[in-house]
Amino acid sequence: MLESWPMLDLTVPAAVALDLAAIGRFASARGWVPATSGNFSCRIDAAHAAVTRSGIDKGNIRPEDVIAVPLSGALPPGVSAETPLHVARYRHDAGIGAILHVHTVAATVLSRCDSAGGYVELEGFEMHKSLRGVTTHEGTVRLPIFANDQDTGRLAERIEEAIGAEPAVPGYLLAGHGLYAWGASMADAQRHLEGLEFLLQCSLEERRLRR
Amino acid sequence: MLESWPMLDLTVPAAVALDLAAIGRFASARGWVPATSGNFSCRIDAAHAAVTRSGIDKGNIRPEDVIAVPLSGALPPGVSAETPLHVARYRHDAGIGAILHVHTVAATVLSRCDSAGGYVELEGFEMHKSLRGVTTHEGTVRLPIFANDQDTGRLAERIEEAIGAEPAVPGYLLAGHGLYAWGASMADAQRHLEGLEFLLQCSLEERRLRR
Amino acid sequence: MLESWPMLDLTVPAAVALDLAAIGRFASARGWVPATSGNFSCRIDAAHAAVTRSGIDKGNIRPEDVIAVPLSGALPPGVSAETPLHVARYRHDAGIGAILHVHTVAATVLSRCDSAGGYVELEGFEMHKSLRGVTTHEGTVRLPIFANDQDTGRLAERIEEAIGAEPAVPGYLLAGHGLYAWGASMADAQRHLEGLEFLLQCSLEERRLRR
Amino acid sequence: MLESWPMLDLTVPAAVALDLAAIGRFASARGWVPATSGNFSCRIDAAHAAVTRSGIDKGNIRPEDVIAVPLSGALPPGVSAETPLHVARYRHDAGIGAILHVHTVAATVLSRCDSAGGYVELEGFEMHKSLRGVTTHEGTVRLPIFANDQDTGRLAERIEEAIGAEPAVPGYLLAGHGLYAWGASMADAQRHLEGLEFLLQCSLEERRLRR
Repeated sequence: MLESWPMLDLTVPAAVALDLAAIGRFASARGWVPATSGNFSCRIDAAHAAVTRSGIDKGNIRPEDVIAVPLSGALPPGVSAETPLHVARYRHDAGIGAILHVHTVAATVLSRCDSAGGYVELEGFEMHKSLRGVTTHEGTVRLPIFANDQDTGRLAERIEEAIGAEPAVPGYLLAGHGLYAWGASMADAQRHLEGLEFLLQCSLEERRLRR
Repeated sequence: MLESWPMLDLTVPAAVALDLAAIGRFASARGWVPATSGNFSCRIDAAHAAVTRSGIDKGNIRPEDVIAVPLSGALPPGVSAETPLHVARYRHDAGIGAILHVHTVAATVLSRCDSAGGYVELEGFEMHKSLRGVTTHEGTVRLPIFANDQDTGRLAERIEEAIGAEPAVPGYLLAGHGLYAWGASMADAQRHLEGLEFLLQCSLEERRLRR
Repeated sequence: MLESWPMLDLTVPAAVALDLAAIGRFASARGWVPATSGNFSCRIDAAHAAVTRSGIDKGNIRPEDVIAVPLSGALPPGVSAETPLHVARYRHDAGIGAILHVHTVAATVLSRCDSAGGYVELEGFEMHKSLRGVTTHEGTVRLPIFANDQDTGRLAERIEEAIGAEPAVPGYLLAGHGLYAWGASMADAQRHLEGLEFLLQCSLEERRLRR
Repeated sequence: MLESWPMLDLTVPAAVALDLAAIGRFASARGWVPATSGNFSCRIDAAHAAVTRSGIDKGNIRPEDVIAVPLSGALPPGVSAETPLHVARYRHDAGIGAILHVHTVAATVLSRCDSAGGYVELEGFEMHKSLRGVTTHEGTVRLPIFANDQDTGRLAERIEEAIGAEPAVPGYLLAGHGLYAWGASMADAQRHLEGLEFLLQCSLEERRLRR
């Protein structure tokens, strides 16, 4: 694999690199980014975001592992192969400040289990309130599932078209792959990620009991 | 969400703030307070308790995240939306020194599973003895389940009426929501919380095997 | 509960207290001693052992939480209620140097599940070799289960009579209660504890699949 | 057990000993090397590898716990009983730089479950891409399972003959025993280990749901 030698990207604010390192340590301690999987990003400004380098241990993100990418135009070398999914979200929603992607067992298994229907349905949990704009446990949350695709540019187009301008849920699943979540800030994105993962764990447990 | 700017509440004793920070770190490390969920409180005196601020990471409770609340009268801004549940317990039982609320997978799933019956029944576990006043594994422990309600004032009234002056178990479940536990001291409350959570995990496991 | 005020027991060697604190931190981090459950001991000499105090957090055993007990005669106040189980083992087997007792979900659930038969049967695991004297994965290991009893003196007699002078397995289960394991040294006892707990986790998982 | 007294093996480069200590701490924190199980090695040069000592706690590998072994000829005393499995891999594939062996519940249970068929089949996971040379989630990965054998020299011969010169997957299972994984570097071997373990956990979870 030919890659440019990792160099410090001076256009990434230090606070952004530190935020990405912190969320990486959190996700790694939970076992949510096994085998160098997962990727994380932060918006820098209206035209740029900072994304984690491909193939690194997310539990130990160093400053040189964070790369600034333009939200339009060609991507620099070395960035995660899933960067187009991040860029598309930032372009279509100016309110997004951070995007997190992890590989958990619950997300991977349920994304395969329910892929035919196109979503995982979650009903009546207090944890719904962890999602922005949700103020009650009553009602239903539908977390979309998209078929996986190694052409992440094409996949990003398909996803953005499907979820529309105002997605009801700040996240989606890729079938057999993992969970994406975003938010206005890193704290919001992390709350959404943790809330969705908890809901998926509860759903998985209830299916075990109900079979 | 309009909130007063977090300021240090000088009426909260430092030892109380440190106790709340410690239980927060414990619960966070166990994964019991995902997505800023959960809330913790300590009695300050006969007329006041200290409660955690709404929407904070419970793994990193800072002194300014702990707010003194009166046990009668209006609540100050910024406190957890579930503060009325804490206040009602302190008012009805002068022997309670601390109250802990967490969101675990076992508590959430079993609170939904058994909500029609109104309790989770646990029988014959040595861990019963972690509960105050229980001296044997023999017999049955019934952990009450209450329907969830976003009107926490109304919910508190319903709960207090149901559990009465001398509840048999120092805790209850809110359906689809999570576990409450209390005790004469923070150590007692934590022992009850850990004991009940362990019993719920065992019960969940036994149901998986028996289906 | 009337207890003598914790004082440093000067007859406990410092190395023994440190060993007990270390195994306590290990077991607590694994979640094996919830709600101040579990207890640990080390032999001091032919006539004495050091046992953990009743009701303490096993993740933070302090020197004053370790109490020397005689292997014959009356027990001092404050020791764990299960001290008679420890003492009986040390008396009947001069080769035992340490005894560990934990409350895990797998041990608790399987001890109830298989209590009628009197043992959990484990067959064909490489992990059998973690047990002293076992040199192959071939064959069967039977971990005895005894009915729980709050009279731990009477329980100790029943257990010692049943397992005999040379028990095949360095541990046993108490039904609905937890796992005991021992060894010639603290390291041996910990290896037996971890090996038996791993075998129980595998057995529990296989039962889930086979139902 | 007669063993030479642990002495520092001066032919083991310090960087190799540190790498082995680091992977040991990682695997121990995950609970993948219970009861002193598991073993780890690094290639030193074309004719030597460094292997962990038998019977040590893998969470605390010290420099004197790492022993240099020749890739042909007699093994020095004190090395892990499974060293022949490591040596055979290094001899048959000059591209291997590190080999890791762990005992996880998922690997142990699935290796028994699927042993008749000779492999665990994994299909359609994004995590396939954690394996060297795999660039898509499409298709199937077959992780071989070999019957366990206490004669590890004989077992090594059987395995090498079966997997051939270019094994499709950088790892295998020993039935009822655990998981082996390797890679060109320690980082590659760890990525393969984590990727395979994640896939096994997903497969185990899917079987629970499908029963």
